[in-house]
Amino acid sequence: MSEHVQRFSSIAEELNPEIYQHKLYPKHLVQIVSDDQVIHGWRAEQLQASDELSNLVLGKGEEVILDFGDHTVGRLSLHIKPVGSPPDAPLYLKVTFGEMPVEMAVPFSEYEGWLSRSWLQEEAYHVDVLPAVLHMERRYSFRYVKLQVIDTSVKYKVSFEQVYCTAVTSADQSQLQPLEHEDPELMAIDAVSIKTLEDCMQEVFEDGPKRDRRLWLGDLRLQALANYETFKNNGLVKRCLYLFAAFPNDKGLITANLFMKPVIIPDDTYLFDYSLIFVATLHDYYQATGDLKTLQELWPTAYRQIELSLEKLDERSVLQDENTWWSFIDWHQELNKQTASQAVLIYNMKLGLVLAECLGDQKQDLLRAQMDKIQSASLEHLWSDELGFFVSGREEQVSCASQIWMVLAGVVENEKAKDLLLRMLDEKSALPLTTPYMVHHLIEALIQVGERERAVGEMKSYWGSMIKDGADTFWELYDPNNKNFSPYGSYLINSYCHAWSCTPTYFIRKYEL
Amino acid sequence: MSEHVQRFSSIAEELNPEIYQHKLYPKHLVQIVSDDQVIHGWRAEQLQASDELSNLVLGKGEEVILDFGDHTVGRLSLHIKPVGSPPDAPLYLKVTFGEMPVEMAVPFSEYEGWLSRSWLQEEAYHVDVLPAVLHMERRYSFRYVKLQVIDTSVKYKVSFEQVYCTAVTSADQSQLQPLEHEDPELMAIDAVSIKTLEDCMQEVFEDGPKRDRRLWLGDLRLQALANYETFKNNGLVKRCLYLFAAFPNDKGLITANLFMKPVIIPDDTYLFDYSLIFVATLHDYYQATGDLKTLQELWPTAYRQIELSLEKLDERSVLQDENTWWSFIDWHQELNKQTASQAVLIYNMKLGLVLAECLGDQKQDLLRAQMDKIQSASLEHLWSDELGFFVSGREEQVSCASQIWMVLAGVVENEKAKDLLLRMLDEKSALPLTTPYMVHHLIEALIQVGERERAVGEMKSYWGSMIKDGADTFWELYDPNNKNFSPYGSYLINSYCHAWSCTPTYFIRKYEL
Repeated sequence: MSEHVQRFSSIAEELNPEIYQHKLYPKHLVQIVSDDQVIHGWRAEQLQASDELSNLVLGKGEEVILDFGDHTVGRLSLHIKPVGSPPDAPLYLKVTFGEMPVEMAVPFSEYEGWLSRSWLQEEAYHVDVLPAVLHMERRYSFRYVKLQVIDTSVKYKVSFEQVYCTAVTSADQSQLQPLEHEDPELMAIDAVSIKTLEDCMQEVFEDGPKRDRRLWLGDLRLQALANYETFKNNGLVKRCLYLFAAFPNDKGLITANLFMKPVIIPDDTYLFDYSLIFVATLHDYYQATGDLKTLQELWPTAYRQIELSLEKLDERSVLQDENTWWSFIDWHQELNKQTASQAVLIYNMKLGLVLAECLGDQKQDLLRAQMDKIQSASLEHLWSDELGFFVSGREEQVSCASQIWMVLAGVVENEKAKDLLLRMLDEKSALPLTTPYMVHHLIEALIQVGERERAVGEMKSYWGSMIKDGADTFWELYDPNNKNFSPYGSYLINSYCHAWSCTPTYFIRKYEL
Repeated sequence: MSEHVQRFSSIAEELNPEIYQHKLYPKHLVQIVSDDQVIHGWRAEQLQASDELSNLVLGKGEEVILDFGDHTVGRLSLHIKPVGSPPDAPLYLKVTFGEMPVEMAVPFSEYEGWLSRSWLQEEAYHVDVLPAVLHMERRYSFRYVKLQVIDTSVKYKVSFEQVYCTAVTSADQSQLQPLEHEDPELMAIDAVSIKTLEDCMQEVFEDGPKRDRRLWLGDLRLQALANYETFKNNGLVKRCLYLFAAFPNDKGLITANLFMKPVIIPDDTYLFDYSLIFVATLHDYYQATGDLKTLQELWPTAYRQIELSLEKLDERSVLQDENTWWSFIDWHQELNKQTASQAVLIYNMKLGLVLAECLGDQKQDLLRAQMDKIQSASLEHLWSDELGFFVSGREEQVSCASQIWMVLAGVVENEKAKDLLLRMLDEKSALPLTTPYMVHHLIEALIQVGERERAVGEMKSYWGSMIKDGADTFWELYDPNNKNFSPYGSYLINSYCHAWSCTPTYFIRKYEL
């Protein structure tokens, strides 16, 4: 086991990506104004071009907000010049970063969400010697920067000059093919998708550069799909696969996410669907690269996720439901995960079967047999003839997630699958979707049943609306009917550049939508 | 002039002192309790020995206060260990330093004084990777340290280990002679004086290591006097004299203080008494060292301060009063500075005369003649027969400062001087003293008139009371009758280790009190 960890880790280590750096400069000085008509109620209004910045002189209690014009991820540098008498007290400076105008407007002291407030992007500095050049150590994810002079002294003020961000990414722009498309809305959606992916591509595929800055399996799979169509950093996907494979628990189960520093540590969060999605991620990687060696080496890890999942079936071959946070699927607080998770199992068994066939693995017969049994059980126990939908849990909940995953798993197919999805969309009675992650799977399912136009329509009405609402990169969470939605108790802590939201470019380019 | 600046600066640069470093560890964990009976109303109460610290586990909103057992100046280091699941969010940590318990108790957000809040000693850190070793960059002046966990996440907490301060000073302990004295109170006052001096001795003689961390001439003179009796770092005094001499204004006037970084800049604050005290400081240095070369080189600078001061005399040979902050003398808000400043001029002329005699400078005759004229004018115009005191300003204010400086200047001598001082002390009608700087001059004057016992009594009732009130080092400001006194609008910003308060050791050792 230890040898295994070492070998997989060292393969991952060798694939540590080159980080591309480039300097970005603020475009404008802005003020944030209250506006009922925009998301969160705050809008950035341009005041001056950013080259006016060095003419501003700020004293105690004064502030300036810089707009970089687009989302960026990197480290901020700035020059600070004293104005007046020699500084007879340190400068006390607060720097606040925001992906969205609301982060510039609402004081973080008002934050009462249940994720750590340490994610809110702010720093305070005491600068003893002026003039000074401040190279901030931490990486931030932002479009806006607020510089607040908490105090100087009565004898001097300060000016800021040469403010720039050293942007970082492991995405190689030269790999990117320009998109030729007659629909400008799809062009825009494609561009924002790619920017989202770029800003999440760091030493690993991160879920979000603002929060959690971590390698999650569910996000990885979707990022990898977008990556094959854009930046083609296939080594980074391979690296992430090896990282997950290097650190299973003592049963061989793969964690939902990995911590990279100070040493690689698998999180103690295990999610049924995320562990299984390792199979799909390996499948996609092999399809994209034909890298048989990696497939051979990681196939036992992938197969082990299926084996362990099968242990959770009851005597009817139906997944045992749990009250804990055992499977992710989506962020809807009332979502029952049983049926969608059953479908995720079948879905990954199908992709696993493809891999077993490629490898000539004799497990394929066993897989096929078990799959048939579970599919039948799903139709027998999780389908409601009365309701005409798949149902989930003791209370027979009808959710969109269950229908979508059952279609993706092929438990229903062809016209029946198409009818199911369209009826679900039209009736709007099923428990809705809350994350781009789950909307991705809806689009994939619509394309699978041949509903390309409907897929484009749904994509526009979701990701297109996000752009209309001001997205420079696609958001972790978006509910067009409840734009202040946050599963964390505050939209201040939402991530506004999030990996699992980057897949429209994959759909547009892969399926030539 | 530029050559002159270069030569003096390079002599000062060569005398840049060795900085001695030693590690200090906290002694106790304490809590700060409200107590009407103590200064500021807050007292530190011991909870546990500090080796219990690493057993404490702190989550969101929890804090611990460390007591180092004595005042120290240096940089804090600490190890931070996560406890629980792998940290899935940064640690947001606030560190607050205090010389006094009140700085641990009263939130700095309540500060509304008129000096910059940037002097309040606090830092906030986002620590992305745990475990971590935090070596704080800035130097702090403190006895107490509060570690506040603003947030971790629900999945982990933190423990602190190996907290220590790398204390820094240019005071060489090996130069210090132990004091043998039968009076334990004087032993204690001597020890606290020396600690005060030690903590203010850095790359220059600083006024206070918490605030302003700067080389002020008035403070320098008193520190130098204490230094000759204790650490004997005469090179540091020489360095500071050359620094002041290197940067006069275009008339040759010496600034009240110097900024050392990023380059040496003379402050645009000029104080009548401080500029003149360069003469006294050079005098004391020559007396202590016999360094004739330095005397020869700096004498023109010293003499120039006298020349420029003489220009401020009116036709009666009395200093013209001003409404601005033209002379320091003391912090009492109502103090008129005219008469005390006139005495400071005479005092420095007398010491200048000693130097001119040593050098055989022909200016001595001129100096002697002018001095006699100004002394006579002082008695004629600034002495009130009716009141029996020196008076100052248009409103003929009677202040202690005026009497003390006139005695030090020898304008009144012998029994008359003694009577004046004792009457002033007994009647208590004169405007009182507010700073240890001015109380120093009272003690010096009492010794000068032969009142050694009264001098000891006054020293005990001032510096001894400070110790009873909890001083580990002597304070910038102390009014036994108004212990919350601050000339800055808040005692949070007062300096509790201040150069001009360190002189009891000079009196005790120099005069063998």
